[in-house]
Amino acid sequence: MTMKRKKVSVIGSGFTGATTAFLLAQKELCDVVLVDIPQMENPTKGKALDMLEAGPVQGFDATIIGTSDYAETKDSDIVIITAGIARKPGMSRDDLVQTNQKVMKAVTSEIVKHSPNTTIIVLTNPVDAMTYTVYKESGLPKERVIGQSGVLDTARFRTFVAQELNLSVKDVTGFVLGGHGDDMVPLVRYSYAGGIPLEKLISPERLEEIVDRTRKGGAEIVNLLGNGSAYYAPAASLVEMAEAILKDQKRVLPSIAYLEGEYGLEGIYLGVPTVLGAGGIEKVIELELTEEENAALAKSANSVKAVMEVLV
Amino acid sequence: MTMKRKKVSVIGSGFTGATTAFLLAQKELCDVVLVDIPQMENPTKGKALDMLEAGPVQGFDATIIGTSDYAETKDSDIVIITAGIARKPGMSRDDLVQTNQKVMKAVTSEIVKHSPNTTIIVLTNPVDAMTYTVYKESGLPKERVIGQSGVLDTARFRTFVAQELNLSVKDVTGFVLGGHGDDMVPLVRYSYAGGIPLEKLISPERLEEIVDRTRKGGAEIVNLLGNGSAYYAPAASLVEMAEAILKDQKRVLPSIAYLEGEYGLEGIYLGVPTVLGAGGIEKVIELELTEEENAALAKSANSVKAVMEVLV
Amino acid sequence: MTMKRKKVSVIGSGFTGATTAFLLAQKELCDVVLVDIPQMENPTKGKALDMLEAGPVQGFDATIIGTSDYAETKDSDIVIITAGIARKPGMSRDDLVQTNQKVMKAVTSEIVKHSPNTTIIVLTNPVDAMTYTVYKESGLPKERVIGQSGVLDTARFRTFVAQELNLSVKDVTGFVLGGHGDDMVPLVRYSYAGGIPLEKLISPERLEEIVDRTRKGGAEIVNLLGNGSAYYAPAASLVEMAEAILKDQKRVLPSIAYLEGEYGLEGIYLGVPTVLGAGGIEKVIELELTEEENAALAKSANSVKAVMEVLV
Amino acid sequence: MTMKRKKVSVIGSGFTGATTAFLLAQKELCDVVLVDIPQMENPTKGKALDMLEAGPVQGFDATIIGTSDYAETKDSDIVIITAGIARKPGMSRDDLVQTNQKVMKAVTSEIVKHSPNTTIIVLTNPVDAMTYTVYKESGLPKERVIGQSGVLDTARFRTFVAQELNLSVKDVTGFVLGGHGDDMVPLVRYSYAGGIPLEKLISPERLEEIVDRTRKGGAEIVNLLGNGSAYYAPAASLVEMAEAILKDQKRVLPSIAYLEGEYGLEGIYLGVPTVLGAGGIEKVIELELTEEENAALAKSANSVKAVMEVLV
Repeated sequence: MTMKRKKVSVIGSGFTGATTAFLLAQKELCDVVLVDIPQMENPTKGKALDMLEAGPVQGFDATIIGTSDYAETKDSDIVIITAGIARKPGMSRDDLVQTNQKVMKAVTSEIVKHSPNTTIIVLTNPVDAMTYTVYKESGLPKERVIGQSGVLDTARFRTFVAQELNLSVKDVTGFVLGGHGDDMVPLVRYSYAGGIPLEKLISPERLEEIVDRTRKGGAEIVNLLGNGSAYYAPAASLVEMAEAILKDQKRVLPSIAYLEGEYGLEGIYLGVPTVLGAGGIEKVIELELTEEENAALAKSANSVKAVMEVLV
Repeated sequence: MTMKRKKVSVIGSGFTGATTAFLLAQKELCDVVLVDIPQMENPTKGKALDMLEAGPVQGFDATIIGTSDYAETKDSDIVIITAGIARKPGMSRDDLVQTNQKVMKAVTSEIVKHSPNTTIIVLTNPVDAMTYTVYKESGLPKERVIGQSGVLDTARFRTFVAQELNLSVKDVTGFVLGGHGDDMVPLVRYSYAGGIPLEKLISPERLEEIVDRTRKGGAEIVNLLGNGSAYYAPAASLVEMAEAILKDQKRVLPSIAYLEGEYGLEGIYLGVPTVLGAGGIEKVIELELTEEENAALAKSANSVKAVMEVLV
Repeated sequence: MTMKRKKVSVIGSGFTGATTAFLLAQKELCDVVLVDIPQMENPTKGKALDMLEAGPVQGFDATIIGTSDYAETKDSDIVIITAGIARKPGMSRDDLVQTNQKVMKAVTSEIVKHSPNTTIIVLTNPVDAMTYTVYKESGLPKERVIGQSGVLDTARFRTFVAQELNLSVKDVTGFVLGGHGDDMVPLVRYSYAGGIPLEKLISPERLEEIVDRTRKGGAEIVNLLGNGSAYYAPAASLVEMAEAILKDQKRVLPSIAYLEGEYGLEGIYLGVPTVLGAGGIEKVIELELTEEENAALAKSANSVKAVMEVLV
Repeated sequence: MTMKRKKVSVIGSGFTGATTAFLLAQKELCDVVLVDIPQMENPTKGKALDMLEAGPVQGFDATIIGTSDYAETKDSDIVIITAGIARKPGMSRDDLVQTNQKVMKAVTSEIVKHSPNTTIIVLTNPVDAMTYTVYKESGLPKERVIGQSGVLDTARFRTFVAQELNLSVKDVTGFVLGGHGDDMVPLVRYSYAGGIPLEKLISPERLEEIVDRTRKGGAEIVNLLGNGSAYYAPAASLVEMAEAILKDQKRVLPSIAYLEGEYGLEGIYLGVPTVLGAGGIEKVIELELTEEENAALAKSANSVKAVMEVLV
């Protein structure tokens, strides 16, 4: 019968983290704690205050604080990790992996110290391996450590399809499995406009182009921005996952989940369709795949494993 | 009986301009054209695309495009100007004024070429003088050229009061006249929590501190961020003004309006309470002021005039 | 560049009409005129006033008026017809058809007198024949006279499926063709949960039960209420169609559309997938049907024709 | 760290109760249990199902059930009482009071049996005495038994003022003390448009007319409807109070609160400004009143006491 507000902490106050904090507060889903390293404490506080000052105008009522002190995250219902570095020119993949692994470990240890029963959503790249790292470090049950990639990938796919067909995005759906980006396994046969399979509405060649554009959707934004990467759609994706959990919505959303036999895979985090509710990942939905899809998923799993081998 | 979507163009794709574009689209108020200079065309396109890709997830349906071509702004219902430079260390005030004046002139001439009957909302600082510049350059009637400062100032004031009293921001109101920042004339006697005058709830000393913090609210964020200035609350403020006009809401909001006799002032743009509706500023509300308030408003008007004298 | 609010008139101030008016205003989609016969003028005004008084609390800002004077509907962007009688015990189907036909004619003639370029959405039963009657009487182009049944039928189907699978209704879709109720042609193969065809998630027997419950969904409510029929979901369905048109959303929604060759049918109004936007029904989407589906659709069309033959 | 959905039970499935249930679900504030007597069980189930079927279309996701079994209300966060009879022609006031008192006692005893720590909001008339009855019967602390009247009275006042001034209801506020209807004590000096005291905008005569219309606002609707009373605005008012509590918003709203010395009154429930949050009525705000206002409040308190004396 407690009626205190829910609480979500967002680790990393860069553009994605800050936008995530804003969208959470705007929906009045929870109070928000935006966390960054001590050197970034002032900018983090500045962003939090600026967002808070938007509240009276946008009509939302939520506490948003910026801090570098994890004690403030105490008893978070959900913690979202956006911290970590992006790959810089000249940096090897292994360097990226190992650097972000260190960040994940440090961050996770602080999170669970203050919120030992929380649910964690991970965005940091390479996201499959980073979610695995957080899972191992946290000691949380597997259903409470979740990675984001599929919500964003399908959002991009849906945007491109809606433009192609000049239809509302509200009526276009997409479906992906496997890893993020190049390793994405699109299930076009489970993607629709108004319930009609896209294959009946768009030529195979054009669909392949749209799938390809989706695969490279992150890079497309990076190239346009010149400096930095996408944050509006990634933040919106994190918030949709968090909302499903906070409101116990039983949403069917693609998540990076820990597999123990599902899809014939064992001991890795990979993108699969899931049911998200108060229990975190309440279910992994298993689908029969075609031979081709199975091959693509195996390839995707191998890519993830290759990254996992780099983990220290 | 036309039912085409409304259209708003946002000039300047920096943080405030981009956030404004996002908030407009998110509310499905209109289609949005985000405009910047040719050198910024790609980043502008990147931001617009990233926002668009958030649509399927957030459930909004609006076209957002990035461009450097003003032809794309054709027939905008509203144009919001956020372009211009911020004052840099070592830059004289006059340099700032004259640089932004040039920007306003260039931008306005392009705007009215493509949307000769639009309504323009100006954010660029020093905002009173810049709104005046846009008014003169545009040839639009005075009620269709409006500056923003009071919605933001009162949002900050309301935030601080709600924190002070531990009450919802939904029930706290504020009231300001005059210029932005240091020249702001707060009417604390017209500011309330749940309808109760703040003067009955907060001591005069504490209220003065809150007013002072509001005056320096922009600087507080600048100092915390270290690099850059507030954009969430400014963008939300612009969107509230635009929504009032797009939906013909007859909102009572503080605007920077062109005065021709109101409050004993003539030929300057200054912050006053207004009614915003489909006609732009449909009314300037005149209030009886105390002697002290009148003096503060006169001082504020003089500051604006001093800046106007710097205009070329 | 006009920015006046949109206007929707709702004919019939019974529960469905009133709820439709309320949901339209609540979304701030338009101003609303609720119309009924002179004998009902006072109750209609009473309902409109009661709704209006909910505005300050719910935070919406729209004019809602009740009237019996069609002059008040002048220049409506959309008119929604909910007027007419329900079948009473002992009343023959032909009596129902001919009584409501008279109502449609009288109402339509008043509508187009004051809004000669409007778009009309019809709910009155038997809806296919009544939409045809309004089309003929109005002289409007076919794409501007639309009947509602499929949005409601799929809403019921989605509700039952979401309950069956314990999933969010947000992730369940349905698809129907043909007439309302008994003549509904469900396309279960185009119905999904999280993009996964329902046939993979629910046994054929159970799915058939759900389809059957959907067919009888209106009667289920009638039987429970004992006195009267459903109005929340019907009103929500009308509002979704109106919103798609008012905001030019290009939604893919099932509508009762006038067919001239589509699906091999000519000169009748029947439920088909359509694209709704500012132009009304901007497109009828044609699907290849199985032999069984074709037979069901032909049967459905014959039922509609049988009713049309009763029209005077 | 529990994240189960909140739960609100609404007692009485008449128009107000049903509309309250719908508005709660529509905002996704909670799951809803709509309760009525066994003879009304089927209609109650019918209304609940109809609302639920609106969910897929309106995009909300909440369980709504209809029942006559109080066991279903178990562990409700809030219970809203709309049950009871309306005064019929020829019925004495005392009959009304004693009949509804019996209803309150029966209902309350069932409520607290299943939700011993809940918060109850009462709408049934005469609301001050009925709230007192529920308080006594429930054994709950006074801050957890709350009556509604002022939110509705001010909503009506705001509507009439917004119409008078042709301004948005969003910018008009009102303030009342004391009993409902005839005994309402309006504090016009604490009522504003855009922060400006109404006394500066509307003549005293016209304001008095508006106050008078507000006092008779319920009767105005009753007279127009001819049969029945207002339910949209009353339901919206109940939902605003419930939302403030469910989200711990610290809203400043007028509530019927149990007074123990505040405003010089002792042992009665009367309308006063309060802070509503997770704790129920977290604070009664005391204001200095003018002599005239004090007299009106004393008169209002005496009216309530006269009704209380009729209680058995």
